[in-house]
Amino acid sequence: MITREEIEEVVSKYDKSRITISTICSHSALQIFHGARELAFKTLGITTPDRKFVYEAFPLAKPDLFIEVRKFKDVLTREVQEKLIEENCVIIPHGSFVEYVGAVDIVNKLYVPMFGNRMVLLWESDRSKQREWFREAGLKTPREFKNPSEADCKVFVKYPGAKGGAGYFTADSIEELEEKIRSAIRRGLIKSLEEVSIQEFIPGVRYYFHFFYSLMLNGGFRVGEGGRLELLSMDKRIEPIDEAYRGLPNVPTEFFDYTVTGNQPLILRESLLKDCLDMGARVVLASQRLFPPGIIGPFCLETIYHPSRGFTVFEVSARIVAGTNLYPQSSPYTPYIFNEPMSTGKRIALELKKAMESGRLEEVLY
Amino acid sequence: MITREEIEEVVSKYDKSRITISTICSHSALQIFHGARELAFKTLGITTPDRKFVYEAFPLAKPDLFIEVRKFKDVLTREVQEKLIEENCVIIPHGSFVEYVGAVDIVNKLYVPMFGNRMVLLWESDRSKQREWFREAGLKTPREFKNPSEADCKVFVKYPGAKGGAGYFTADSIEELEEKIRSAIRRGLIKSLEEVSIQEFIPGVRYYFHFFYSLMLNGGFRVGEGGRLELLSMDKRIEPIDEAYRGLPNVPTEFFDYTVTGNQPLILRESLLKDCLDMGARVVLASQRLFPPGIIGPFCLETIYHPSRGFTVFEVSARIVAGTNLYPQSSPYTPYIFNEPMSTGKRIALELKKAMESGRLEEVLY
Amino acid sequence: MITREEIEEVVSKYDKSRITISTICSHSALQIFHGARELAFKTLGITTPDRKFVYEAFPLAKPDLFIEVRKFKDVLTREVQEKLIEENCVIIPHGSFVEYVGAVDIVNKLYVPMFGNRMVLLWESDRSKQREWFREAGLKTPREFKNPSEADCKVFVKYPGAKGGAGYFTADSIEELEEKIRSAIRRGLIKSLEEVSIQEFIPGVRYYFHFFYSLMLNGGFRVGEGGRLELLSMDKRIEPIDEAYRGLPNVPTEFFDYTVTGNQPLILRESLLKDCLDMGARVVLASQRLFPPGIIGPFCLETIYHPSRGFTVFEVSARIVAGTNLYPQSSPYTPYIFNEPMSTGKRIALELKKAMESGRLEEVLY
Repeated sequence: MITREEIEEVVSKYDKSRITISTICSHSALQIFHGARELAFKTLGITTPDRKFVYEAFPLAKPDLFIEVRKFKDVLTREVQEKLIEENCVIIPHGSFVEYVGAVDIVNKLYVPMFGNRMVLLWESDRSKQREWFREAGLKTPREFKNPSEADCKVFVKYPGAKGGAGYFTADSIEELEEKIRSAIRRGLIKSLEEVSIQEFIPGVRYYFHFFYSLMLNGGFRVGEGGRLELLSMDKRIEPIDEAYRGLPNVPTEFFDYTVTGNQPLILRESLLKDCLDMGARVVLASQRLFPPGIIGPFCLETIYHPSRGFTVFEVSARIVAGTNLYPQSSPYTPYIFNEPMSTGKRIALELKKAMESGRLEEVLY
Repeated sequence: MITREEIEEVVSKYDKSRITISTICSHSALQIFHGARELAFKTLGITTPDRKFVYEAFPLAKPDLFIEVRKFKDVLTREVQEKLIEENCVIIPHGSFVEYVGAVDIVNKLYVPMFGNRMVLLWESDRSKQREWFREAGLKTPREFKNPSEADCKVFVKYPGAKGGAGYFTADSIEELEEKIRSAIRRGLIKSLEEVSIQEFIPGVRYYFHFFYSLMLNGGFRVGEGGRLELLSMDKRIEPIDEAYRGLPNVPTEFFDYTVTGNQPLILRESLLKDCLDMGARVVLASQRLFPPGIIGPFCLETIYHPSRGFTVFEVSARIVAGTNLYPQSSPYTPYIFNEPMSTGKRIALELKKAMESGRLEEVLY
Repeated sequence: MITREEIEEVVSKYDKSRITISTICSHSALQIFHGARELAFKTLGITTPDRKFVYEAFPLAKPDLFIEVRKFKDVLTREVQEKLIEENCVIIPHGSFVEYVGAVDIVNKLYVPMFGNRMVLLWESDRSKQREWFREAGLKTPREFKNPSEADCKVFVKYPGAKGGAGYFTADSIEELEEKIRSAIRRGLIKSLEEVSIQEFIPGVRYYFHFFYSLMLNGGFRVGEGGRLELLSMDKRIEPIDEAYRGLPNVPTEFFDYTVTGNQPLILRESLLKDCLDMGARVVLASQRLFPPGIIGPFCLETIYHPSRGFTVFEVSARIVAGTNLYPQSSPYTPYIFNEPMSTGKRIALELKKAMESGRLEEVLY
């Protein structure tokens, strides 16, 4: 495991006046580059050849430099890492970055400084660690069933890793559940029963809350060790199941697909912001106890709300989520916090800038 | 009933150069405080202790002063009222304000000046008065059935007061309707059959239109006595039923819940704006005939549109609605009316400012 | 057919310093007028008497001049055309313009210069030409069935022309399909079987992509002959079927209605932008081969995305679409392209302004 000291060593050799914000060209990279440019950071995009034109198609979100790789995992090669370090790069991890490079390899093999605390990726990507985190935070989560035969209610079944929801399914009975698991094994989606996560199906409305835990800005909602918690925005994900009603009365089975294809904006009833902020604070505090200094920067709580149950949290994303792409300038909440246009991408750049200005850059990198 | 003259008497003693905009901390208070601050008004939030941190978490929407109360109804106590009057407060009523304090008590016991015409709250909160208002306006509303046995179609059943949709239900037959009403009585949701409102179920798309009737600005769509009608924005409410398709084919009964949990943005087909504005104008004109000077400031028409039926109006909210929280800076319609960022909260502050500048403050308060 | 030379002759007599942007008052006219005003163009609205007040209700989107007509088709009368030419008008075609005036009559009888290449309207309004265009572009489209008896899957049935989806339906079997076609003929929706378009029902998520093909701006995504392709925004249409789940379990048949009533904002998963931009580029390139100089200005690809099928394109709108009305100032994509607020309406005005400044106005008119 690469230590914080090793990363600090790398940072110590950086030209602090020429920090470059970098990530791989996918997920929320347009927003990240755009936000960095707004605050006059240099930007560098790691891209595969077939995607480069996308980032050229949006001139104000186009990185200043490109590194072309055959596959994203090549970011771990010595050649690419040296180039990134040479350019004083700080990597902003996002969902595709973690998916393609892998949390374990990031922690063990990536010597380039990253924004935030990379330890969080280990806690996010391992379902049992994530459950421990939620338990420590005292959050309500769906009941989990180890064995299909224990499933005494409608269930929702997921697979490990961030495959974006592909192959997830519901089952209304133990028989249906067992048959669908056998089918998933036959189709090679999973290797064995042990890999599936069988959860109680929670009825209600999905809210994905986009938080930012800041060490650099004062005022606002103080949480934990010297930081403040901001609620920047929220979204709802769009999956094929979300158009299932269009196939009524005989809904084609292809609609029962939970792959995330995009996002829609929404707001939460104001009286529920209390619970929302409280959940965010609990997650931060638990992270500070479980893996100090805990989570830093953007994270997302993925919840289902029902009036009779309150919020059930089913996942945490411990980095910028794609739903923030809805708000490249402002969300229904950012005008209440910032006097200027603010996206999560720009918020990251702002945190870096404030850290640099106060000589505290090392605090927000690892 | 507190008379307009009594309120004018209170206002006459106000320091007009130091008007404070005030409301209780819920519903749309962030937007109201933010809008007031944008126009340099002082702000005061009446809050319960557990909610205060929410308003501190959004520094640019945080009121300058807080009054902490044990429960919101305490706004009626002599102590709180005196403090509000001492601070030259104008109260902005919103949904939670009306729900917690009560329309009748507002009219009879609240001596603090309110923005708009408080008479409107009596017409809004009483279903039979609301129906009279719609009839006077010539609007199409759902058919209502006094007795379950008369229900000759799919019906939608609501309860009195603004409980945000909790416990509402549909029924496809008289038997189902009667059984569900008995169940609601058993569960204590209502005391007797007399309390339910049984309406024809209207298929179609929900549109909630956010209007503002202004006495202070010129130009635009002139309606009634010296005012203009603005369409500021629109929304769709999000209720658990809105995710029911995710439970297909065996939808859990908990999805059949109509409690409002949040809001989504949308726009209306431009050719239908004619009908939308026409409905808004009819509601204003009818209000001027029924309770002069009629409605002033923000109001919302809650409609269902179907191509074969046109618009059916099922409710009016005669004050700012929470759906406007989607648009703290601009909506898809405000850029066509204002050269600056404009929310409904800021619009209220602008109306007050214009009224003060022209010495007509009394016209927009009661 | 009115030739390009004839239109150039009209333009040659225009006072280039006083170009007026004009369209009929419907569809996206508020946005078009507002965008034109932002760039200091004069504006002229062709309206029926009953709609005029709508455009007066939005002062910053109100045209400088109105021409009142009894019906929109009267734009073809000599009197109206002469007035439009006298005012140096450039017409911006939109969906209602094409629907009311008719593509064939526009091409044969309208001597007023239009923004873009009017030939495109012939390719858009004729289903067989549109299929040829998609084939030339190499896009995936739904399978079509000439005869109901060939329908071997769930199907979606549409009618010719832009009636906004009225009367469209799905069928799960050949028997249901045949019965519903007979019913449509009985109800006068169509005259014969030949008029219906029977398509494979495609499950997935609808995305309507708003493109702009520019001849005047440099940089960005270069496509074809001297132009660049911009992705300005996207939307999802709202039809009664979109609330069908609210009628569960016994969904009233009125919900099975596909008339467009409005639009909702959304964004696409960033990794899919590659496919989205690629489809847009293919449509532009095919148009340049099929009807040079091809498409110019705004157009929309109407797609359904499913993870297992990718994008299926079911329609192209070769002019501004109403979904762009969601974004009168900026979309989740425009900040990545423009340093100022930008709508599709303003984008059209910007293209005209740039063309005027560089003496290339004729290139973007026909």
